Amino acid sequence: MKLNLKKSLDMQNRARNCIPGMTQLLSKRPDMFAPGVWPGYFSHAKGAEVWDLDGNHYIDMSIAGIGANVLGYSDIDVNEAVKKSIDNGTSCSLNCTEEVELADLLCELHPWAEMVRFARTGGESMAIAIRIARAYTGKDKIAFCGYHGWHDWYLSANLETDTLGNHLLAGLDPAGVPKGLAGTAIPFRYNQIEELQAIVMQHKEEIAAIVMEPIRSEQPKQGFFDEVRAIANEIGAVFVIDEISAGFRMNTGGAHLLLGISPDIAVFSKALGNGYPIAAVIGKRDIMDAAQKTFISSTNWTERIGPTAAIAMIEKHRKLNVGKYLIEIGNLVQNGWKNLSEKNDLKINIGGIPPLSHFIFQGNNPLAMKSLFVQLMLEKGFLASTLFYSMYAHTSEHVDVYLKSVDKAFAEISDACHSGDLEKRMKGKPASSGFKRLN
Amino acid sequence: MKLNLKKSLDMQNRARNCIPGMTQLLSKRPDMFAPGVWPGYFSHAKGAEVWDLDGNHYIDMSIAGIGANVLGYSDIDVNEAVKKSIDNGTSCSLNCTEEVELADLLCELHPWAEMVRFARTGGESMAIAIRIARAYTGKDKIAFCGYHGWHDWYLSANLETDTLGNHLLAGLDPAGVPKGLAGTAIPFRYNQIEELQAIVMQHKEEIAAIVMEPIRSEQPKQGFFDEVRAIANEIGAVFVIDEISAGFRMNTGGAHLLLGISPDIAVFSKALGNGYPIAAVIGKRDIMDAAQKTFISSTNWTERIGPTAAIAMIEKHRKLNVGKYLIEIGNLVQNGWKNLSEKNDLKINIGGIPPLSHFIFQGNNPLAMKSLFVQLMLEKGFLASTLFYSMYAHTSEHVDVYLKSVDKAFAEISDACHSGDLEKRMKGKPASSGFKRLN
Repeated sequence: MKLNLKKSLDMQNRARNCIPGMTQLLSKRPDMFAPGVWPGYFSHAKGAEVWDLDGNHYIDMSIAGIGANVLGYSDIDVNEAVKKSIDNGTSCSLNCTEEVELADLLCELHPWAEMVRFARTGGESMAIAIRIARAYTGKDKIAFCGYHGWHDWYLSANLETDTLGNHLLAGLDPAGVPKGLAGTAIPFRYNQIEELQAIVMQHKEEIAAIVMEPIRSEQPKQGFFDEVRAIANEIGAVFVIDEISAGFRMNTGGAHLLLGISPDIAVFSKALGNGYPIAAVIGKRDIMDAAQKTFISSTNWTERIGPTAAIAMIEKHRKLNVGKYLIEIGNLVQNGWKNLSEKNDLKINIGGIPPLSHFIFQGNNPLAMKSLFVQLMLEKGFLASTLFYSMYAHTSEHVDVYLKSVDKAFAEISDACHSGDLEKRMKGKPASSGFKRLN
Repeated sequence: MKLNLKKSLDMQNRARNCIPGMTQLLSKRPDMFAPGVWPGYFSHAKGAEVWDLDGNHYIDMSIAGIGANVLGYSDIDVNEAVKKSIDNGTSCSLNCTEEVELADLLCELHPWAEMVRFARTGGESMAIAIRIARAYTGKDKIAFCGYHGWHDWYLSANLETDTLGNHLLAGLDPAGVPKGLAGTAIPFRYNQIEELQAIVMQHKEEIAAIVMEPIRSEQPKQGFFDEVRAIANEIGAVFVIDEISAGFRMNTGGAHLLLGISPDIAVFSKALGNGYPIAAVIGKRDIMDAAQKTFISSTNWTERIGPTAAIAMIEKHRKLNVGKYLIEIGNLVQNGWKNLSEKNDLKINIGGIPPLSHFIFQGNNPLAMKSLFVQLMLEKGFLASTLFYSMYAHTSEHVDVYLKSVDKAFAEISDACHSGDLEKRMKGKPASSGFKRLN
């Protein structure tokens, strides 16, 4: 089925003329999927279903709003709470009580945490965590692992072209990051304790924080996080866990609770608001209190929708044990990928925790294979890519019909690879690779 | 009338236990008004009216959500547009068209601008503007005037205790700002072209941007901004105008349009969303395109409410000529302050553009005078302080009843000053001074 995408493609062109990069988020660029055939824009979305500007209907088996929509799109319970807050006024010269309630709720879910600051986006909440860690310790350097956003403190890792950082965070260009930050952010790899030990050896007295995602592609090695914790204690560094991607995926709260990690600060966004902008920095009292030694303040952090949505999301998440469900759905998809790739003689590497699953095509032209997959799935009525983020709105029926279509798409890609006409079958261009994460 | 504030004061104590600083915004701390008598929290707000947690009703003649609510609280037209976007889903794996429409609308209002990036808060949008300017020029230093938020690039001005910055931005502690940024942000004062010239003399080849608010307390001197523009051209610096406070106050768009300023980039937030989080960086094409040389990306920047609210706000603002109205209301208030202070033998200094007016008590104990004023006005049913930000929801009747109460409050403060029992009449503590802005 050839899709009519005229309005969607016109809107993409219009956007490219007035918005550098077309969108505010790398992961939502059509280039990340299949340029020329990916619709890019939606008119409405509900549950796991999306309608584009040309009226095409899809089941979304892709990135779930890049992980923002953990419950599903336009969730009725979160919407109802938000609309009530709109009727009562979302902003005035006084503060809203919902942020206090949310702070208490987050501390209840994470009993080691005692104080909370809020922001509205993931990047800025990580910048707050870093500011607090630096203010608390009086030190500047950050040892980090994983992806933590667009801010200067993080991209500075790529300022020195000969560092590990430049190698591992390929695609994150630090243009415009002040050169005075060179050497302040030093990367190490997940489960490679000796890399962190080497950083500590060299910069022991200068490290303000050790910053990590709790989990992404692989499980932590036995004892790995205990060693990180011990190192943080030894050198007086603040141990910051970035839960922006992993939080509220496998459990109601941070993945660190499941993995037995003991951080000093944890940072949440994305899933926290189910698509409404909110971010939270939670932490131990003495460390969080350092926020008062410095200046961290923004008008739009005081509005009511963000904490209202977060409270509604958390309550529903907890009541329905959403984390368990997301793992089940993710496992169904990962198992489907495995079986269907074998059946169709396609080599793929599958990774990620089940709620944040991905696979990588193995072959001479993986980006063309990805684009053809995206294109074939669109034509079968699915937003789909090599990433799958599960939502509570996904049903096993969604997975069933999705996997039937994946089977056909894999068969055609396999056929195209064997007959060598992969690119001839593509109606758009190959996907871009985006940036390589540091795992 | 003694107000019952039990629930409000309990909530403040609860908040202080779990949120460092109690709120996300310095300007919304009860300390900034009258600690112990300022309610701090609201249950609902509509137009210019606010109800606190104990059911007390106020007309808000204070900070209008610190300038966020330019139309008024819970504006029916903006709310209606936002609720429609909620029903259609505010976030999914695709992009919303409203950000493209808003980008075009902002470029229509500001014909010199061609491209737009969005964020959700003022501070992060200024950080984007700085990143773009640095990426475009390949330089790091910023010459600035005025207030521009909590981010590292700005607070770094206070890292060297002997700079002008430290003196003029008293109260903005740079704890936690990396020391490698020392010397990268250099302040100059409004209308003091020779201070900018001196910075240029010393750092000519290194200046990425000249960053200013278009107006705050005083009018620009004839030719001042032309000279700034000429200097920016001469040294190849990006001229950034921060419209976060001044934008949409006197006209539909940036104040720079009224003042004949020709920037390369302008930044909006606060009023732009009438209380819904949204921020925009608008600029010339070749400069904005530098955003693609670096990495500026965030999930929550892609949701639909922000641009929806901004479009609805701008359309209403333009249709009703809200800027003209805000000036009229502001002038009524400033004239009232002037007449009533003279009548009651109180010395005050009045300043600010009419929509963002303020006065400063002159006397031995101005912070106690301010706190007593806040307290007396609360007891008369007004949220009021020494700042007055006008909203479209303010009517001349609001101003009339407000000024009648100001008259009585000024009379009592004058009496208290003469009889020397200012502090005895206070039920709370004196206000904090907050930070001193660089004008």
